Amino acid sequence: MRAAPQGLPPDEVDCLVVGAGPVGLYQVFQLGLQELSCAVVDVLPFLGGQCAELYPDKPIHDLPGLLACSGAELVERLTRQLEPLRPRSVLGHEIVALDAEPDGRWRLADDAGRVWLARTVVLAAGVGAFAPRRLKLAGIEALEGRQVWHREPRADDPIGDAPCVHGGDDRALDAVTALLERGAAVVHLLYRRDVYPASADRITRLEGQIAAGRVIPLVGQPEALRLDDAGRLARIAWIDRDGGSPETPVSALYVSLGLNPRLGPLADWDLGLVRKQVSVDPATCETRLSGIHAVGDVCTYPGKLKLIVCGFHEATLAAHAIAHRLRPDAPRILEYTTSSARLQRILGVDALPGGTVSR
Amino acid sequence: MRAAPQGLPPDEVDCLVVGAGPVGLYQVFQLGLQELSCAVVDVLPFLGGQCAELYPDKPIHDLPGLLACSGAELVERLTRQLEPLRPRSVLGHEIVALDAEPDGRWRLADDAGRVWLARTVVLAAGVGAFAPRRLKLAGIEALEGRQVWHREPRADDPIGDAPCVHGGDDRALDAVTALLERGAAVVHLLYRRDVYPASADRITRLEGQIAAGRVIPLVGQPEALRLDDAGRLARIAWIDRDGGSPETPVSALYVSLGLNPRLGPLADWDLGLVRKQVSVDPATCETRLSGIHAVGDVCTYPGKLKLIVCGFHEATLAAHAIAHRLRPDAPRILEYTTSSARLQRILGVDALPGGTVSR
Repeated sequence: MRAAPQGLPPDEVDCLVVGAGPVGLYQVFQLGLQELSCAVVDVLPFLGGQCAELYPDKPIHDLPGLLACSGAELVERLTRQLEPLRPRSVLGHEIVALDAEPDGRWRLADDAGRVWLARTVVLAAGVGAFAPRRLKLAGIEALEGRQVWHREPRADDPIGDAPCVHGGDDRALDAVTALLERGAAVVHLLYRRDVYPASADRITRLEGQIAAGRVIPLVGQPEALRLDDAGRLARIAWIDRDGGSPETPVSALYVSLGLNPRLGPLADWDLGLVRKQVSVDPATCETRLSGIHAVGDVCTYPGKLKLIVCGFHEATLAAHAIAHRLRPDAPRILEYTTSSARLQRILGVDALPGGTVSR
Repeated sequence: MRAAPQGLPPDEVDCLVVGAGPVGLYQVFQLGLQELSCAVVDVLPFLGGQCAELYPDKPIHDLPGLLACSGAELVERLTRQLEPLRPRSVLGHEIVALDAEPDGRWRLADDAGRVWLARTVVLAAGVGAFAPRRLKLAGIEALEGRQVWHREPRADDPIGDAPCVHGGDDRALDAVTALLERGAAVVHLLYRRDVYPASADRITRLEGQIAAGRVIPLVGQPEALRLDDAGRLARIAWIDRDGGSPETPVSALYVSLGLNPRLGPLADWDLGLVRKQVSVDPATCETRLSGIHAVGDVCTYPGKLKLIVCGFHEATLAAHAIAHRLRPDAPRILEYTTSSARLQRILGVDALPGGTVSR
């Protein structure tokens, strides 16, 4: 827990959005179109949530109108889209407290002691803060990000001449393939069994890689990391099925033991969680707590599909419901960005550079 | 009514999609991901529906991740996205008949006598077939598309030296501005009143254009079109407020008297239409007729917003509900295009050009 800054006044907002994944970002955009003040908080130190963390390079093919759009590209596009709204964000911090105020607002606090007084809240928390299940070996923390990673290989990782993947799931087998595509001559695949809990096509691919001598499967459990005199990871000691303790050279270790999403403090709130999801009214995405909405993978309702395209819709309904809640007397007119001067002004697309002529 | 081709066997499909606007196109895409056979029919002779017909050049700003995407660009993107699914489409024809078959399927026929036997139907009919309210003057049909248009000005229209706009709404005033931007020295604006039913910003803009001598307002009603010896439109005769009959030279006439969407034969089906919308179960987008779904602007449910982003969600739910209906025993597993070999195979993105290595 970070030290709380002292004496900061609470930040008063129309809406606090918890979670800055694609749906949280679009939520901020839709709230901005409603001219509601908002801020977004995410436990990850960057925008994009699961998309940016888990599959930044993998193309998504079913976003409407976006062909083969990687997670990173989607996040970049959504971030650019809401730039004119100058959103406030607090990244790398977790909301740890939620309390009802006497005036109907919600008081939220993060792990650094920041406080928000929010007239409404939208939880866009996905399946929670994603944490890859970590390999527990002495000294591994010091190597993280230099020779050990708990994520997929990226283009600029220094993989060296003896990369190794630990794990047996789809992500592990994809990491093997990514390393081969990066130019690794051989990849070691260390997993406790010789049966892999991965999709049939990945296993077929792996069999081909093994037959071609590109992948060497090691069946066993990691036991220790061996460093050289310079403190660099040099070998991994592991226990094979006969109880032996072989050591294998390793220049880079990718760990893929699955993910541990955890909802964190949300789970303690009175939201009526069922299987880590919050029931909402599908017309408004409001939870059973008045003024607290939930959108994206964290919410559920009859027919719910955990797809980004559905989260975008939910964020849109939530923004309209919140606007109506906070301005009950305003007429409920649906405006379109193609024609509304108000929306175009908000988005900064109302005037051509040198003049007053609307586009 | 076009002559019906004789003796064609009915086209048997898992789903017939009625309407090829953005939501209908995305519906076809989502049905394709479910490996359901489908066809799409639209009364317009091109893909894109309202988007392509009404605002092909106007940027839409609130599509997730698509910044300032024109209607035409959106349609082009969606069309490209579903290309791998090789969808069948019948354009320029209207569904005129819908009947229940004894086996639970629906028999639909278009105005050319084509017949479909569809296990399910999705209505993505928008607010119906859009028809601009037409100016009724003798001889106007022969000039349509050459010197008279019932749509917004386009870049390659031959506007000549005396363009005229008839109407007073937002679209009319935008047409005036578009003509000035096209290089017209002066534009005549013919409308029955000198008060315009347009947005405040457009009226301010118009006042500037009038003050600058770029727009000449004519207050009155059109009476007749005057042609030259070559049969070309030369002048428009109109009746002013004093009952006079002035004539004004005109080289191009843009009519903007509003739109008349009409649901057509849909309105006669037993769908329980309320204000031209069909009530659906929001979990499945199914109407009260079993196996007939409705998505996009034509459907309604609590919280419904007539926004494209919501239509995309509805199309997704409908496709999943239809897949479940037609394959009730298949496991309901949500697959992702980032990782599913099946989806990637369908979309043709499963193999790199020369090999078998999955992306």
